[in-house]
Amino acid sequence: MRDVAIVGVGMHPFGKHPDKSLEQLGADAVWAAVDDAGLDPRRIECAYVGNSLAGLLSGQEGVRGQVILQAAGFDELPVINVENACASATTALRGAWLEVASGACDVALALGVEKMFVGDTARSLAALAGDSELELARMGMQFSATYAAHPKYDLRGKMRDYGWTAEDLAEVVVKNSRHGSLNPYAHHRRALTAAEVLGSPMISDPLTLYMCSSIGDGSAAAIVCAAKVAAELSERAPVTIAACALRSGRVFTSGDEGHSTLREMAADFYERTGIGPDDVDVAEVHDAMAPVELLVYEGLGLCGPGEGPELLRSGATAIGGSTPVNPSGGLTSRGHPVGATGLGQVAELVWQLRGEAGPRQAKERPLVGLAHNQGGLLAGMDSAAYALTLLKR
Amino acid sequence: MRDVAIVGVGMHPFGKHPDKSLEQLGADAVWAAVDDAGLDPRRIECAYVGNSLAGLLSGQEGVRGQVILQAAGFDELPVINVENACASATTALRGAWLEVASGACDVALALGVEKMFVGDTARSLAALAGDSELELARMGMQFSATYAAHPKYDLRGKMRDYGWTAEDLAEVVVKNSRHGSLNPYAHHRRALTAAEVLGSPMISDPLTLYMCSSIGDGSAAAIVCAAKVAAELSERAPVTIAACALRSGRVFTSGDEGHSTLREMAADFYERTGIGPDDVDVAEVHDAMAPVELLVYEGLGLCGPGEGPELLRSGATAIGGSTPVNPSGGLTSRGHPVGATGLGQVAELVWQLRGEAGPRQAKERPLVGLAHNQGGLLAGMDSAAYALTLLKR
Repeated sequence: MRDVAIVGVGMHPFGKHPDKSLEQLGADAVWAAVDDAGLDPRRIECAYVGNSLAGLLSGQEGVRGQVILQAAGFDELPVINVENACASATTALRGAWLEVASGACDVALALGVEKMFVGDTARSLAALAGDSELELARMGMQFSATYAAHPKYDLRGKMRDYGWTAEDLAEVVVKNSRHGSLNPYAHHRRALTAAEVLGSPMISDPLTLYMCSSIGDGSAAAIVCAAKVAAELSERAPVTIAACALRSGRVFTSGDEGHSTLREMAADFYERTGIGPDDVDVAEVHDAMAPVELLVYEGLGLCGPGEGPELLRSGATAIGGSTPVNPSGGLTSRGHPVGATGLGQVAELVWQLRGEAGPRQAKERPLVGLAHNQGGLLAGMDSAAYALTLLKR
Repeated sequence: MRDVAIVGVGMHPFGKHPDKSLEQLGADAVWAAVDDAGLDPRRIECAYVGNSLAGLLSGQEGVRGQVILQAAGFDELPVINVENACASATTALRGAWLEVASGACDVALALGVEKMFVGDTARSLAALAGDSELELARMGMQFSATYAAHPKYDLRGKMRDYGWTAEDLAEVVVKNSRHGSLNPYAHHRRALTAAEVLGSPMISDPLTLYMCSSIGDGSAAAIVCAAKVAAELSERAPVTIAACALRSGRVFTSGDEGHSTLREMAADFYERTGIGPDDVDVAEVHDAMAPVELLVYEGLGLCGPGEGPELLRSGATAIGGSTPVNPSGGLTSRGHPVGATGLGQVAELVWQLRGEAGPRQAKERPLVGLAHNQGGLLAGMDSAAYALTLLKR
């Protein structure tokens, strides 16, 4: 496999954008990434487009990526439409990476885009609550009850095992909303207090409204290319993809040591790259619900089992700490337009590794960034899509 | 890139299967492919699942592949869900090929599956006629009017340019229905006469009912692996993927020389592999509408511009001819469950290349097979997904 660099990233701010179509959201991120790369767009040889919900929400079931990219001015680009629920965008990135790493092409585009506000919130809710086998369908607007109480994804059991409190969960949101308040791409930009988080409406015990990511519109894109192309484009050291993996597997369950599939994936990354958890300078993780962030800390080896709240309260995972997590604000603050989220994480890490994150810069000169994206919680099934991406500079 | 072999294929017969769920259809093809390969299923390292319409037709919008494969007994397989309208299954095959060719894994599964009869044909029609930007949405049950009259996909103009008659189109169906009558996997198994084809209800001039593929349920799967794994499994020469490509591009238009993107793709294949059109022993092509087969003949270089009807009438493209096309019966006879079709073509070619096609064996000891699959005809846009696969033994 060849080395692969990310030479350009772009985002449309996540949020509620009733005036923007799926095509417009997608085009904005693609052109922002092209501009960021300083690349002649005709050099892009193929595109992977991640989207999860447009079939049900807009009726655009087939060839979504072609529709979006044609509207963006790309007439004859080979397009592979990919879907993996909330991990759709990282699935797109991995596809683009594999095209370039394998030598199948030199320059590839990855786009993640989602439009969940379709001018009629009742329709969005109806789509999510359709007759799907997916757990997502039962989660409702805030993806919440299932995370809290599903027998397979047993958050309450896990909290009981570990002795975690509602206050522990609230602290995740306090940190992430503080980060998000500094991010112009974030959906929710108000720094929340623990009292506000705990006092917000109860969605599904122990999850209050502000502990849950919300529906949103948005897009993010990345241009990936072979090292030789990156060298032509800029003299600066590019951000490279050190590892990129996708798995289905077990989620955390009560009695389990927590995120076993994630732990295996992370261990495999660390072994293959020689980069350990202590070397991770900044991470973006999938806090679809606040407590997931605490569990992912241990999955990624940033702390031992059950030690997430301690790590958080130590300040280690805040901007300026030893391993800042979710400097973008994460899903709870930056927002969670399902099929765009994973590339939103990657765009943030690229900006962080380049030192371009402005007031939310996680630390000076970070060298290693790690993104954790997951999706596809299934009803009555013990499987999901996990996607990890390790970036370095 | 490493050599990649197809060591197992399987299909669920295409047709109307109200008693089978999407999951059951998928599982049947996967296990048939595993059995055909004689492979320990635990050796499969990842899966690409192609499906186009389940979001709208079953409400299963997200992680369709995981739902299907979990039901089939594959609990922790990394799954990439791909979509490219009628080319979804070949997109899945190309993904599996790239995983193995690149060395990312040794054994990968490609599945294409579609359920269009959902117990309520009105619902299928409503789904196809939704508010999508896709031309598909306007095609109705028989995908017909657009092929006939769309200004970009200008069949009537092309027929006028070439002087083709309705009888020319009917002869495609006569041949393919004769082939399909020999195929236990085919949806429509009655050999039709030209008079029957021409006398069937007019859908959109010049297309009569029997010139159009119908909606259907079905699935097809392939197991692809590195050459070294193929050698372990069997002493027989495996079927290998000599080339595999996906493009978006121009469809045939009046005044154009016909299928320019397809011609470019085929020319690229022939140049890269050293296999010319005269070496193609058997082909499966995407006759969603009968006249497409005539245009694809010239796109693949089997004849010159406008010479499709002559080639057909010569018998060259019938079973026993010099280059049999659609020995399976093609889309018009074998059937067209959208997201399964491309792998149905590939399964047929693998059986043909192994000499296992029974009464529909195209010729003795064929060495080279070519599959042409296309999808994603867009409203007002000059683009589609083309997928070509060149197999050899």
